[in-house]
Amino acid sequence: MQTTNSVEEDMFQVRKLEITDKNKGFIVLLQQLTVCDSVSDEAFDEQFHELAKRGDEHIICVIEDYNLGKIVATGSVFIEKKFIRNCGIVGHIEDVVVDSVVRGKQLGKRIVDFLSDHARAMGCYKVILDCSVENIPFYEKCGFKKKEIQMVKYYV
Amino acid sequence: MQTTNSVEEDMFQVRKLEITDKNKGFIVLLQQLTVCDSVSDEAFDEQFHELAKRGDEHIICVIEDYNLGKIVATGSVFIEKKFIRNCGIVGHIEDVVVDSVVRGKQLGKRIVDFLSDHARAMGCYKVILDCSVENIPFYEKCGFKKKEIQMVKYYV
Repeated sequence: MQTTNSVEEDMFQVRKLEITDKNKGFIVLLQQLTVCDSVSDEAFDEQFHELAKRGDEHIICVIEDYNLGKIVATGSVFIEKKFIRNCGIVGHIEDVVVDSVVRGKQLGKRIVDFLSDHARAMGCYKVILDCSVENIPFYEKCGFKKKEIQMVKYYV
Repeated sequence: MQTTNSVEEDMFQVRKLEITDKNKGFIVLLQQLTVCDSVSDEAFDEQFHELAKRGDEHIICVIEDYNLGKIVATGSVFIEKKFIRNCGIVGHIEDVVVDSVVRGKQLGKRIVDFLSDHARAMGCYKVILDCSVENIPFYEKCGFKKKEIQMVKYYV
């Protein structure tokens, strides 16, 4: 017999972003993360195809609430090729966000684990990300440790 | 009449990495940054060509001491495509290092300025990097501000 928990787990599977996810609130979800104006269908499709060209070197994953037909969590990871570490590769996790309505269901951890596992499977020697001080405990639960300081210069 | 300073400036121009730079101590220089085993010519050439495929979306720049025929500073920047910020793009600066022998000549700032200018010219809305606490004052001089905390998970 299935418990409530495993039913919920089945309902919230992580999968890769699909081009139809724009109509399932993907952009609206990103607006919970940062400045994210509405994106035209053309601009979305163009960026989707640009990213798709990089194949497994840049993936965006999502969790869809199939009852609502709505994207409720997302995150991305891309691969950087280096000369250090014997021409090693590094995974960069970016733009992780969970819909505030469904927080507390470990969906963020599922997203981060999916992205970390992808980086590892690609052969990365490490995976990195930048987060706010408040989110450090969450990423520690995901197996990350504090390392350096992120510096930024804005142009717009 | 040229001053000593402007002669030095002429001597230390920033340019893009060339495939022959491996024989000018490029890998040895990276060893001052982090773990960087010696790289075979084949592995170097393969990674060089892989990176070259990305064109202006991933560049490595160097400063050569032409008197010595030696690479004395380097850094890289690559472009990440996003959906946030109206399908905006972000520059990521990585692997900045100046040969300890020539420190104090502002070569690090030249490298960072070159990479930042490239990101801006490409249309990035921001450029980011991660650094140690000790290097914060240097990056502040380059126009950067502290933002977030870098978190890392190592696989090897």
